Amino acid sequence: MGLMTDIETLDDLFVHTLRDIYYAEKQIVKNLPKMIDKATDEKLRRGLQDHLRETEGHVERLEQVFRQHGVEPRAVDCPAIDGILKEADEVAGEIADKRVLDAALIAAAQAVEHYEITRYGTLVAWARALGREDCAALLQQNLDEEHAADDKLTDLAESRINERAE
Amino acid sequence: MGLMTDIETLDDLFVHTLRDIYYAEKQIVKNLPKMIDKATDEKLRRGLQDHLRETEGHVERLEQVFRQHGVEPRAVDCPAIDGILKEADEVAGEIADKRVLDAALIAAAQAVEHYEITRYGTLVAWARALGREDCAALLQQNLDEEHAADDKLTDLAESRINERAE
Repeated sequence: MGLMTDIETLDDLFVHTLRDIYYAEKQIVKNLPKMIDKATDEKLRRGLQDHLRETEGHVERLEQVFRQHGVEPRAVDCPAIDGILKEADEVAGEIADKRVLDAALIAAAQAVEHYEITRYGTLVAWARALGREDCAALLQQNLDEEHAADDKLTDLAESRINERAE
Repeated sequence: MGLMTDIETLDDLFVHTLRDIYYAEKQIVKNLPKMIDKATDEKLRRGLQDHLRETEGHVERLEQVFRQHGVEPRAVDCPAIDGILKEADEVAGEIADKRVLDAALIAAAQAVEHYEITRYGTLVAWARALGREDCAALLQQNLDEEHAADDKLTDLAESRINERAE
């Protein structure tokens, strides 16, 4: 969650973690086009393109959560997502075989999804504990979409791998 | 997954990702004691201590997978887990309030679990695609334990947060 400063209350921790996932979503918007360019399977490309649009929606929804909670939307560095995206970038650059490359891209995209799933899960619980059902409802929408995206990637991985094994 | 070199086949990708999670598990073994020291809630401390022993078992199980697959156990740098653990360390160092600190530690531990869940999920699928049911079975055991650890942390977070809200 980047450099921690002045975290005293659960509210501070909630806002800090909002800023962490806000940074992460924005980095994902920046990095997904590179993954889309590298993907060779048509279903995977379309799936990642859909998820790019969804991710842009997550950024806007987070800005709404910031406003509802009465704080300025602001990002803080998040070494976790930077590390996950660095791995995704490295793996995508090194593999010549199309099917292996797609398998690696799916795995990288799922690592991104799981980071978001854990952060949104935490944020929903904290929003409720703080009595911010309005924020919790918006964060839950992002969480549900990340879960659905992860499930789609699992299905895609399995169909690609089965195809390969045939 | 660290620096990618010479990945041509799904088998190469499988071995590389094994090395990635092997590094991650070893880093977790190194970092969990710091988190245990900082945790104040007795249930959380015990839960993290149990998970440390479990994690040591995961390292051994991974060494067994390497041997079954006929490769030397070896770790490769994993910027993703480094980033996740860096965040965990930063957050733990900055919060004075015990309940807020415990909430942050639980969130950090869940981010670690989710990284492992996504990697083991991928590895189980790839082991099966490669016809390595023996490796898949061991990796599935690690995956099941990570899921269970994550669920326990969710229960703990909810009970701590409910306590706080009372």
